[in-house]
Amino acid sequence: MTTKIRVAVAGAAGRMGKEVVKMVLEDAELELAAAINRSGEGTDAGTLVGLPACGIKVQSDLELALVESKAQVLVDFTTPQFAYKNTELAIRLGVAPVVGTTGFTPEQIEDLDKQCKSKGIGGLIAPNFSIGAILMMKFAAQAAKHFPNLEIIEYHGDQKLDAPSGTAVKTAELIAQNREELRQGNPNEEETIDGARGGYYNGFRIHSVRLPGVFAQQEVIFGGFGQTLKIRHDSYERAGYMPGVALAVKKVMEYQGMVYGFEHFID
Amino acid sequence: MTTKIRVAVAGAAGRMGKEVVKMVLEDAELELAAAINRSGEGTDAGTLVGLPACGIKVQSDLELALVESKAQVLVDFTTPQFAYKNTELAIRLGVAPVVGTTGFTPEQIEDLDKQCKSKGIGGLIAPNFSIGAILMMKFAAQAAKHFPNLEIIEYHGDQKLDAPSGTAVKTAELIAQNREELRQGNPNEEETIDGARGGYYNGFRIHSVRLPGVFAQQEVIFGGFGQTLKIRHDSYERAGYMPGVALAVKKVMEYQGMVYGFEHFID
Amino acid sequence: MTTKIRVAVAGAAGRMGKEVVKMVLEDAELELAAAINRSGEGTDAGTLVGLPACGIKVQSDLELALVESKAQVLVDFTTPQFAYKNTELAIRLGVAPVVGTTGFTPEQIEDLDKQCKSKGIGGLIAPNFSIGAILMMKFAAQAAKHFPNLEIIEYHGDQKLDAPSGTAVKTAELIAQNREELRQGNPNEEETIDGARGGYYNGFRIHSVRLPGVFAQQEVIFGGFGQTLKIRHDSYERAGYMPGVALAVKKVMEYQGMVYGFEHFID
Amino acid sequence: MTTKIRVAVAGAAGRMGKEVVKMVLEDAELELAAAINRSGEGTDAGTLVGLPACGIKVQSDLELALVESKAQVLVDFTTPQFAYKNTELAIRLGVAPVVGTTGFTPEQIEDLDKQCKSKGIGGLIAPNFSIGAILMMKFAAQAAKHFPNLEIIEYHGDQKLDAPSGTAVKTAELIAQNREELRQGNPNEEETIDGARGGYYNGFRIHSVRLPGVFAQQEVIFGGFGQTLKIRHDSYERAGYMPGVALAVKKVMEYQGMVYGFEHFID
Repeated sequence: MTTKIRVAVAGAAGRMGKEVVKMVLEDAELELAAAINRSGEGTDAGTLVGLPACGIKVQSDLELALVESKAQVLVDFTTPQFAYKNTELAIRLGVAPVVGTTGFTPEQIEDLDKQCKSKGIGGLIAPNFSIGAILMMKFAAQAAKHFPNLEIIEYHGDQKLDAPSGTAVKTAELIAQNREELRQGNPNEEETIDGARGGYYNGFRIHSVRLPGVFAQQEVIFGGFGQTLKIRHDSYERAGYMPGVALAVKKVMEYQGMVYGFEHFID
Repeated sequence: MTTKIRVAVAGAAGRMGKEVVKMVLEDAELELAAAINRSGEGTDAGTLVGLPACGIKVQSDLELALVESKAQVLVDFTTPQFAYKNTELAIRLGVAPVVGTTGFTPEQIEDLDKQCKSKGIGGLIAPNFSIGAILMMKFAAQAAKHFPNLEIIEYHGDQKLDAPSGTAVKTAELIAQNREELRQGNPNEEETIDGARGGYYNGFRIHSVRLPGVFAQQEVIFGGFGQTLKIRHDSYERAGYMPGVALAVKKVMEYQGMVYGFEHFID
Repeated sequence: MTTKIRVAVAGAAGRMGKEVVKMVLEDAELELAAAINRSGEGTDAGTLVGLPACGIKVQSDLELALVESKAQVLVDFTTPQFAYKNTELAIRLGVAPVVGTTGFTPEQIEDLDKQCKSKGIGGLIAPNFSIGAILMMKFAAQAAKHFPNLEIIEYHGDQKLDAPSGTAVKTAELIAQNREELRQGNPNEEETIDGARGGYYNGFRIHSVRLPGVFAQQEVIFGGFGQTLKIRHDSYERAGYMPGVALAVKKVMEYQGMVYGFEHFID
Repeated sequence: MTTKIRVAVAGAAGRMGKEVVKMVLEDAELELAAAINRSGEGTDAGTLVGLPACGIKVQSDLELALVESKAQVLVDFTTPQFAYKNTELAIRLGVAPVVGTTGFTPEQIEDLDKQCKSKGIGGLIAPNFSIGAILMMKFAAQAAKHFPNLEIIEYHGDQKLDAPSGTAVKTAELIAQNREELRQGNPNEEETIDGARGGYYNGFRIHSVRLPGVFAQQEVIFGGFGQTLKIRHDSYERAGYMPGVALAVKKVMEYQGMVYGFEHFID
């Protein structure tokens, strides 16, 4: 019989944190060791997420929680201002950090990498835990070697502020690494309505669709002589990231040093 | 037994004209009466289109051809500079014109309408003979009454000069007639790459994708609370317009006056 | 200023009922008059659905609730065993019923129609309140007149018991009414794996995909010479039905007699 | 300056053979050395495919053609009954074979492999030269490691005899190698129309759509918690296979031994 991995969750009462608590409670290989949140101290973590009480109460002191609970992994979905400090603390206590918060500088990541290595533990910082999105990006980058003509269309809810999405830009960067710059299309092309041809990146185009009812979708279309290849990922809800977080928690135990990007955990 | 409709084809050696000749020769309800083209006189029209010889030779004099052949319908896929004259001539001879050439002014159309009516015959001028494209436009216009949030994505070959396509603009106009102007999206939306959000039309967006291997495709996406409705037309080749031309030739016999737009022939 | 429509909700604590209560509380043209449920009496209806308290308590006696609240419309998402009785009661009290429960016999519907008419009120019984799904069915039926070759692909969650879905069968029936029976495909076609060609209906095929992560999606694909036309509806969550219920509540006030099928409320 | 690769084409007057001749004439790195066909001897190969005359006449004796032309590669799109003999002959003459004909037994392939190796040349036998289709299969097999729930939908013209298509079966086999058998769906699932759930393969389902206007398309859909990943390949015409044949001709020069399956030439 394998022992369960003991997981602490920081930011447990936030939107993502709640999903993580729920996932840990329902995953047979994981055990909720501690739930940390600035507010809501004393609430049962199970009750907090709409499940039966589980006996683990929300705590506000992260250090105390990690020490007392003998947590092996800390999943942190707090905010950029707290994440760095939390991560350093976890490493110091020998707890492997899995961080879903963005905003770390390259220097910070390098520093955390050294700390992890000196403690002999692994860690992960990842802006995106969606296995499907990671595969879409990987496949798109591979396909670009064979099909240099491509466009990206991404779909998000109509209240999103920025266009294109972070995932679209990340996909575009990965594609650009696998494809020599090529200005696609007719050199004399004209837009009769400005912007119809989308945003220009490295010779190809990115189109951002914004509609109510859509959560997050992206399609990369490759066009060749007599054929098109499409790779599409549709994300329907926040809970869709949880299988990725579960996988990360299990895999981080096998690593040494701080890994940046969940794609490194996926074959 | 019904008599076949006698069809003359002007511009018979052009790309569309050849498809029309082929279609007429293969349609059991139609009979090729004459094939007219400026060059290539004397070639058998069947041979011209890769079918067995049919006994109809290409002629260069339209008037002579229409009179001698007793044609009932003239299908004209010539060029804007000839189409008007050809159409007037056909009407004068009592031959119903079905014209696939663009570039007529509203005044010309009105004039041709009067001429048709005084001769008691029907006529059709249509920029698009694709039944599927017409249905896509009709359905999109209807859906817009219920789903005011929408975007149009159109796909064409990578050498196309203009963006958006004529069909996309026509679709947008029809939608705008069925929908009060509404500026979609977040008012504070920002493009980090110019043009990512596409071309603006009446509050919604049009995206033009250009890729090798694509002939002509268009999707209209409607987003509502918890749902999306998509209407998509994929056109794979020029021959795909022929069922529409065949239908037009048959239906024009039942009309009086000049109709503008093939959509009026479709329920 | 227009007066708000006073709406009572039966089955208020059920999955659909809760969504209805929420929708009524958030729609500026509607007012929650009463919330009826067999259990949970005394709970505030707002609290029940995760909104601020609204002052309307859940009641268990439908007759009392309708009389005291002066409701104008009763939305009923209970179960087949209660829906008929509830609907009769509502009509007797002059309250227009909007019923989302299935299982009424044609005789019952006819009977309820007479009762509505004698009271001078309207009513609606509808198995599906999704505006997008209704439009998909309407468009598919129209398109079938022009494109007799088609197939239906429907997608639902992997735990769904029956295949094809009710919506797919309804769509197929509507299409069959607009299309002469035509056995599509090669007459000598062979399946090397049984069932690969899908379910046979009136000469065309229905394919049922079942995958985790999918809520309810359907695509009707029409194939013609050189082209395909696709009409697709993706439903992401139960809440997606609410704009339809809201529309039904507003429109039922203009009708006399019992209408069967929400499509009759959509142009 | 690199020397052009000298290519002979067997079956040059067939549907695929003509496309190959055209491709070779238009590819700057390739040179048409010989065109072989049982009938049509003496016709210029350029004229045969609708291009200007190229000075290479169709010949009927393969051995003579290969010897005289000093061909380096033989592209063979003949029929199973001739392909084996042709391939042996090519190898004996030191000409690398690229074979698009199916029907070789495993023993024959092994034998040809030995012959290639003893001559120090490479060879390729491939049922499918579509780069896009190969990538679709590769990506699908990789994705199946992470998403064990999937279905395949393939689309072909309505006169196709067999269902599912060879490509769908090949894809299914590759997926099965990367995924433990898992019976998807609800164990109590019921088909109210036989075959609605598609063909069963290793626990997942294959659906075959047959519609006029479609050439060859396939989509593999993976469903996970809150997300779907789709990999789709649309093939519009026979010419779409030519970039793959061109790549094969160039790559075969770098190999030793007979390779089975074009996927081995693609990274």
